[in-house]
Formats: sequence, C-alpha cells, structure tokens
Amino acid sequence: MSVYKLTYFNFPALAEPIRFLLSYLEIDFEDYRFEREQWPSIKPTMPFGKVPILEIDGKVLNQSTAICRYLSKKCGLGGSDDWESLMIDITVDNFTDLRQALSAYAFDTNEVSKAITYVTLINETIPLYMNKFENIVDENDGYFVNGKLSWADIYFVACLDFFNFMAKVDLLENRPKLQAHKKKILEIPQIKSWVAKRPANSIIL
Amino acid sequence: MSVYKLTYFNFPALAEPIRFLLSYLEIDFEDYRFEREQWPSIKPTMPFGKVPILEIDGKVLNQSTAICRYLSKKCGLGGSDDWESLMIDITVDNFTDLRQALSAYAFDTNEVSKAITYVTLINETIPLYMNKFENIVDENDGYFVNGKLSWADIYFVACLDFFNFMAKVDLLENRPKLQAHKKKILEIPQIKSWVAKRPANSIIL
Repeated sequence: MSVYKLTYFNFPALAEPIRFLLSYLEIDFEDYRFEREQWPSIKPTMPFGKVPILEIDGKVLNQSTAICRYLSKKCGLGGSDDWESLMIDITVDNFTDLRQALSAYAFDTNEVSKAITYVTLINETIPLYMNKFENIVDENDGYFVNGKLSWADIYFVACLDFFNFMAKVDLLENRPKLQAHKKKILEIPQIKSWVAKRPANSIIL
Repeated sequence: MSVYKLTYFNFPALAEPIRFLLSYLEIDFEDYRFEREQWPSIKPTMPFGKVPILEIDGKVLNQSTAICRYLSKKCGLGGSDDWESLMIDITVDNFTDLRQALSAYAFDTNEVSKAITYVTLINETIPLYMNKFENIVDENDGYFVNGKLSWADIYFVACLDFFNFMAKVDLLENRPKLQAHKKKILEIPQIKSWVAKRPANSIIL
C-alpha cells in the first residue's frame, strides 16, 4: 500500500482540494501541517519554493491542481472521455482565475491599490465568475459538468472557505444553486467525515 | 471533419501553444487575430472576458492550458499512463507559475513596485525556475518528462518569445540544454512549417 504525506500550512487554502480528494478516495494520509514561523526554513526544501506538496511513496509532487487531476482518475471523477475531461479542466482553471483575482487583492500590501482593486473585484470580477458558476450548475443538474459528480465539484467546495476569506464576502449569498451544490458535496459521506475531523482552525482559513 | 477557429490578439503569447499543437497535429485552423483597438468590443463576448478561445465545430472553449492538454491526447503527447500525465501536468503548471511571476512584473503599472519586483525576478525567481528547467532537461535526455517528447516540450518552446519579452532578458542564455531543446522542437517539421508561415510580428510578441 502506498504511503501518502501532504505538506502544507496549518490551514485549508491550496491544500484542501487535495485533502478532500484523498478523503473521498478513503486514502489514509499524513496531513503534515507546519506553522508560519517554520516556513522560511521549509521553503528552500520545496521543489519550487512552494507548497502544498504531496509525497507518494517518497516521490515529491508539487502543483495542487495537477495532483487533484491525478487523484480524480483513481476514483472515476476525471471525466468519462477526453471531451468531458476537457470540460472539467476548463471549469477548474476558471476557478483558478477567480482565485488569482481574489488573491491579487487579498495579498496586496499597498493599501491604495488594494482599495481600488476591491471596487473592481466586488462590482465586476466576483459577479462575472459567480453568476456564471450559478448558471452552469443550474444548467447541469446541480453539478459543474455534464450533470454528474466530477473533481471540479469537490475542488470548488474545498476552495470555498479560502475564496470567501479572501473576498471578505460570502460568495454564495443569493446564489441558491451553488448553496445547494455545496450542501450536496458536503453530504458525501467521506467528505462529511473529513470536514468533521479536520483541525478546527481550518474552518476559517 | 471538424472546424477549428482560434481567436486571440495578433501576437503569440497565450495562444501560441495552441497554434503549435494544432500545427503539430496538422489540423487546419482559422487563426483569427484581432487588433488591440477591437478588444473592448470583443471582451464581453468571451466566456469569462478573456482570450484565447478555441472553437471546435462552434463549441467555444476557453482556458489555453486545458485546450492544449486535450489536443495533446490526439497526438500521443499527453503521457502514456496517469503518472506520466501527472509529470507533464506538473511541468506545465511550473511554466505557468514562472509566466505569472513574469507578467506580475511586466504588466505592473506602478513604476515603484515594478522596479522592486524586477530585482527579485532577475536575482531569484528566474534563476530558480530556469536553472531547475535546465537540470530537468539535462536529466531527461533532452526533454522535460521521461526522456521523450510530450506537450510540455512544445508548450515551453511556444511560450519562450512571450517569456523573454516579459523578462527583458534571454532566459536561455548560458543554459545550453534548454537551447538545444528549443532547437530540437523548432526542427519538428510541422512546428518548423508553422513558425515559417506565421505572421511576422509574432516573432517579437
């Protein structure tokens, strides 16, 4: 049996989709979490100075999205053909574009540019992405792709706390289809079990 | 026979890996290019306000990396098993991380922060990524993954002009393995033919 070790900060963010998928797969994994003070000493030991990394039998993997795509193939959530896999990949990369818009704001250290960015974020970027996502889930029987569960669904719900934290608003407010989608994903037994047992601080960030 | 139409600005950048892969596949495609002045009227018609998009028989696809992964499967360049596909995906996402670091600098409109970012870019980020890439290609018989051609190789070479433009330096300088890699990819007959016939301005950006 393979040995899985995930290394990340002591919060959800970029590691949480991997944790969700490993949980969905019912794979036991070491959830190694370090504190912010440890980061300067850990950073130089990482492949490109970034986390999360997942080690599988000692083989070090970086890039969380690539890792999730790989894991999804182990549980039939990666698409039933190349076209469906493409639809899922596009969906996940759209999530990433939204995440990057959110993080460009949230981690901007210049208060002037940050304030300006927030206006665009709240009035344009968030409505653009979230309204599209709401419509997509509405048109796809409550899922993001082809009316059935894929890793895009799990990935999105795993990211939500992080997205909301960065946006400083509840992105699902007034978006009932996405609210129902989140509820449905969180009711998947393995996901429910993971969320119940994960460290408490992970609920905030 | 399917009809392919690519829509992008009149330069390589994010569309060029798609153009390279379509060329590699010997797929005839409409290479629709618009000028910067047209962008404000085109932007609202794009799926998430971004380009490139590829239309296949009228179906609109966004997200250039997802599109390239899909195309790669049509020509056996997507990995021979799930693990190899994972290695390729990680590699391409590492390219994307470098691209985003470059574009955060290149498109920063604040001259003060831009100057500060450039110091880190030149002294830390570029050497970190490019030296790793040089070593990876050295250790993999002149390719990025498993000693054989994959879409990661084509993607990287297609991006190089754009990367160099943003970095304002030749990223391959003093990196002989990557220079030889570029030369080899550009000698693939279909790629060579594309580069010879593509619009002249695409050589700069």
